[in-house]
Amino acid sequence: MAQIGSMEEFLAVAVDAAKNAGQIIRSGFNKTKNVEHKGLVDLVTETDKACEDLIFNFLKLHYADHKFIGEETTAAYGATELTDEPTWIVDPLDGTTNFVHGFPFVCVSIGLTIRRIPTIGVIYNPIMDELFTAISGKGAFLNGKPIKVSSQSELLKSLLATEAGTKRDKSTLDASTNRINSLLFKVRSLRMTGSCALNLCGVACGRLDIFYELGFGGPWDIAAGAVIVNEAGGVVFDPSGKDLDITSQRIAASNPLLKDAFVEALQVSK
Amino acid sequence: MAQIGSMEEFLAVAVDAAKNAGQIIRSGFNKTKNVEHKGLVDLVTETDKACEDLIFNFLKLHYADHKFIGEETTAAYGATELTDEPTWIVDPLDGTTNFVHGFPFVCVSIGLTIRRIPTIGVIYNPIMDELFTAISGKGAFLNGKPIKVSSQSELLKSLLATEAGTKRDKSTLDASTNRINSLLFKVRSLRMTGSCALNLCGVACGRLDIFYELGFGGPWDIAAGAVIVNEAGGVVFDPSGKDLDITSQRIAASNPLLKDAFVEALQVSK
Repeated sequence: MAQIGSMEEFLAVAVDAAKNAGQIIRSGFNKTKNVEHKGLVDLVTETDKACEDLIFNFLKLHYADHKFIGEETTAAYGATELTDEPTWIVDPLDGTTNFVHGFPFVCVSIGLTIRRIPTIGVIYNPIMDELFTAISGKGAFLNGKPIKVSSQSELLKSLLATEAGTKRDKSTLDASTNRINSLLFKVRSLRMTGSCALNLCGVACGRLDIFYELGFGGPWDIAAGAVIVNEAGGVVFDPSGKDLDITSQRIAASNPLLKDAFVEALQVSK
Repeated sequence: MAQIGSMEEFLAVAVDAAKNAGQIIRSGFNKTKNVEHKGLVDLVTETDKACEDLIFNFLKLHYADHKFIGEETTAAYGATELTDEPTWIVDPLDGTTNFVHGFPFVCVSIGLTIRRIPTIGVIYNPIMDELFTAISGKGAFLNGKPIKVSSQSELLKSLLATEAGTKRDKSTLDASTNRINSLLFKVRSLRMTGSCALNLCGVACGRLDIFYELGFGGPWDIAAGAVIVNEAGGVVFDPSGKDLDITSQRIAASNPLLKDAFVEALQVSK
């Protein structure tokens, strides 16, 4: 078992890594306005890779014995699946479509699981300069100030977020828009920002009341956000209402008052 | 016919009004985090009213002979319908649901029509401090820097925005989600920000490629944005492909390359 350092130290190192990667994202984001379409795919790929290399090298330098799971280059850093070992789960650039278009919902997401439990969460949006942080049991913060989930108790007055996703086969898309149709009768309105990690932050700080997504990329999209929502007084769960499995590519989040009504409205099978 | 001043003076006065109203919005926005639900409805109503009063009084002071159309208090300021007279069309707080939730897409929208043609556009998001401005024939700007629409020519690579709207009768909602379902097979992804005026600004500065909305509040949602999109090299039109009627509560916007394919994909009847 790898050595367990202090939680505050883990957080500080993760924040450093996120801020450094954020500089690369900001620089790339400002370039997108002057790059032709053919060059944009290269720019996003380069930025993603540069951020992941920076973050993993930085974390490895501090915690050589820890495990690492990332979206792009898992193989290169040796991690394959989630174990009990301290494991950094990283999305170096969440919201790549937003990045390409210059839409300001992009972020770095860095989570640490210990014994498979999300324990540290850092999500940084370098364009809006918003840093969300949390340590298990010690609260959640936005730019150092405590945040909490909304106190909304009525689904009908709730602001919902979800995403259109990337799958375009007919059965997935039909199920997705049918679910949206059914939910729109039961909530106030719907937002789609294009960043799963930032949607979780939105629930954590009460900008959004409820969020769900099915079929996102992987645990790197939610490992950090799950801690941040929990520490802000919220709940993360499988859309069926069961416990969250961070490897399942399904998540829902809300304040505790809305969970039961939200699960019932979602009607997602187990 | 009321006296026609210089366009630059009209713009400067509208920018002053928008920035002053923006201060009220910013102040209210920061309060939402500390107000219980029952107080939020009052806060949004008060903010909306205070901003409209400020803007109309400010504009009336400068242009006593002009006409005024606004969302809330049209009657109080004497305007009823759009005429050839210089007419200020104002949404003092676009994105009220976002305002209530602390979601940062809120703005002031001030447009001026002369002979029914949108001629001046000012849209200010005081939370993100983004000021979009345009004068007919003189380009569009974000915080003083020229902006232009995207150069994307393929619908399949385009980022679409629309809104869930406020109507919850079954036929409207079904038509809305069926259209979204059909469009998702043809575009890259979908964003919903909750502000019609800021969606138009998103198209103008290339963050979004295409946008449509059916059944929004009124001309105050689009009078300013229409000028800004046009001056950024984009096109605004009825979703059927016909000319835009700013009193019709239907709008679509894109760069010129995407218009035909977008209209075909929208399949909105005339």
